[in-house]
Amino acid sequence: MKVLVIGAAGMIGRKLLDQVAKTPEILGAPVQALTLVDVIEPTAPAALAGIATCQAVDLSTAGAAEALISDRPDLIFNFAAVVSGEAEADFDKGYRVNLDGGRALLEAIRAEGLTAPYRPRLIFASSVAVFGAPFPEKIGDEFFTTPLTSYGTQKAIIELLIADYSRRGILDGLSIRLPTICVRPGKPNAAASGFFSNIIREPLVGLPAVLPVDDSVRHWFASPRAAVGFFTHAATLDLDQVGPRRSLMMPGLSATVAEQIAALEEVAGPEAVALIRREPDPVIQGIVAGWPCDFDPKRAVELGFTAETNFADIIRIHVEDELNGKIGG
Amino acid sequence: MKVLVIGAAGMIGRKLLDQVAKTPEILGAPVQALTLVDVIEPTAPAALAGIATCQAVDLSTAGAAEALISDRPDLIFNFAAVVSGEAEADFDKGYRVNLDGGRALLEAIRAEGLTAPYRPRLIFASSVAVFGAPFPEKIGDEFFTTPLTSYGTQKAIIELLIADYSRRGILDGLSIRLPTICVRPGKPNAAASGFFSNIIREPLVGLPAVLPVDDSVRHWFASPRAAVGFFTHAATLDLDQVGPRRSLMMPGLSATVAEQIAALEEVAGPEAVALIRREPDPVIQGIVAGWPCDFDPKRAVELGFTAETNFADIIRIHVEDELNGKIGG
Repeated sequence: MKVLVIGAAGMIGRKLLDQVAKTPEILGAPVQALTLVDVIEPTAPAALAGIATCQAVDLSTAGAAEALISDRPDLIFNFAAVVSGEAEADFDKGYRVNLDGGRALLEAIRAEGLTAPYRPRLIFASSVAVFGAPFPEKIGDEFFTTPLTSYGTQKAIIELLIADYSRRGILDGLSIRLPTICVRPGKPNAAASGFFSNIIREPLVGLPAVLPVDDSVRHWFASPRAAVGFFTHAATLDLDQVGPRRSLMMPGLSATVAEQIAALEEVAGPEAVALIRREPDPVIQGIVAGWPCDFDPKRAVELGFTAETNFADIIRIHVEDELNGKIGG
Repeated sequence: MKVLVIGAAGMIGRKLLDQVAKTPEILGAPVQALTLVDVIEPTAPAALAGIATCQAVDLSTAGAAEALISDRPDLIFNFAAVVSGEAEADFDKGYRVNLDGGRALLEAIRAEGLTAPYRPRLIFASSVAVFGAPFPEKIGDEFFTTPLTSYGTQKAIIELLIADYSRRGILDGLSIRLPTICVRPGKPNAAASGFFSNIIREPLVGLPAVLPVDDSVRHWFASPRAAVGFFTHAATLDLDQVGPRRSLMMPGLSATVAEQIAALEEVAGPEAVALIRREPDPVIQGIVAGWPCDFDPKRAVELGFTAETNFADIIRIHVEDELNGKIGG
């Protein structure tokens, strides 16, 4: 099997590749060739170096998608995106990369299929940003998509295209709507959602973290490990079971900030919790108020997608996967 | 006020123009200039000839949208579309006209607004085709869009773009999801939905009509007169009331074929009903089974959109507007 990973330098792309390196059969068939692309040249895990080709590619430049697809990959992951804040600040770039780039990939697959039969599986990383407030208490699988950002609009559009191209037999697509991934490894960043990870990750290594919202704020989480599981499961799932509705909200855990903090205390003690400093930020509070906080992702659960069911497990996964099991500064 | 009507040669475009000719104040402000375009050159009603310019324009050709928008119309109706069957049969044409053409219009408005402040109102004719079976008994305003045709996919995408461009202040848009328009004037056509109108229109003038589905089939209807009302109301509605969710399912009437026939008998007698010949067609039955048949369009009703509440009224409107009040062969 030939696999193409677009956006391979991002957090989920890298973690997925680490998993493939550890468990070669995880994508359902032996991987003979692996093409890894991102706007900056990604690197392959050492164990995959023999079969991997790494390239710097911007999918939205003319001919880029066709060149990638001319290799006829059997399985394609598309994680590439201009993130939410940037797509909002730079209208042209967001639409060019997230909409035109995503569509160029679908069109390249269609063009390739016109030369000789070709129908790859395409797994697309979508987002809760396809939804916009106000929400019901729990968002069900049939709730409408009314994005309140250009990023969410672009994700919702690619979802619609993937469903139509799948229905027509051009490809076999699935859009995976991700919960907020927590605990996000790395440094604190400027993303409005960053604090959900910061208040766990930083205290676990003895560093302070700022909490800009009230403890009662509720949100929808899954670990990076669960996210990798979503994509490997999507790669091997029998899509006949899925039918024409190809956008799936992934399972996750609805937790309040207070519940996050209680779990931190359970895993790392009160000294970790003491490192959280409350600094209310009305701008971030306003942004967060528009986000979905609870789902009932019945279809994905029935299709075998799984995520954590308590926040302490999410923290323990971070300690295992990122800190070699060690808590403290 | 300058008004641009795209798709002005179509049934709803023409009926809207007839209404503007009769009731000049109906769009909320005096119309000083009227630009009518379609892929074939449309004609203006005689009363509007002094202010109308008619052009043959294909919105999806390079520069066409920019040329239309360089006039800075205050109010734009976009009725233009490759219809459902054709968009399904011709993938490229459907996406080119319905998606790229519709998006080119939005982009032309954005480009014009970058030269000097400009924010026209844009009313887009959308469709129940944004929905796909299975459905709840009544489809509510928050039901998700899972189109089962490329046409429906293209409509749903333009809806998303219009909401995002509106949210960003580029334009003031509204997407009007139309019920099946009945009684459609003109000759019987090959559209799968054609029989809903044929079984009324033909017997009213003493001609036979074929019914290819069971009498129990239920569908969602509004008259051409109601459709014109949707668009004139959309042109004058206070959009602040609407908020960021800019796609509105229009009110209509849910009726079975049996109820249609009973109404025909009420208006035109048993001799009209006797002209309907039952010829079950499994292909049409299959297509119709995937269509929505009942809605609860609460938001549109609250915003003042109205439609007929019984099928006999729909027939009487046809008799008044198309037959000069005269029934029979």
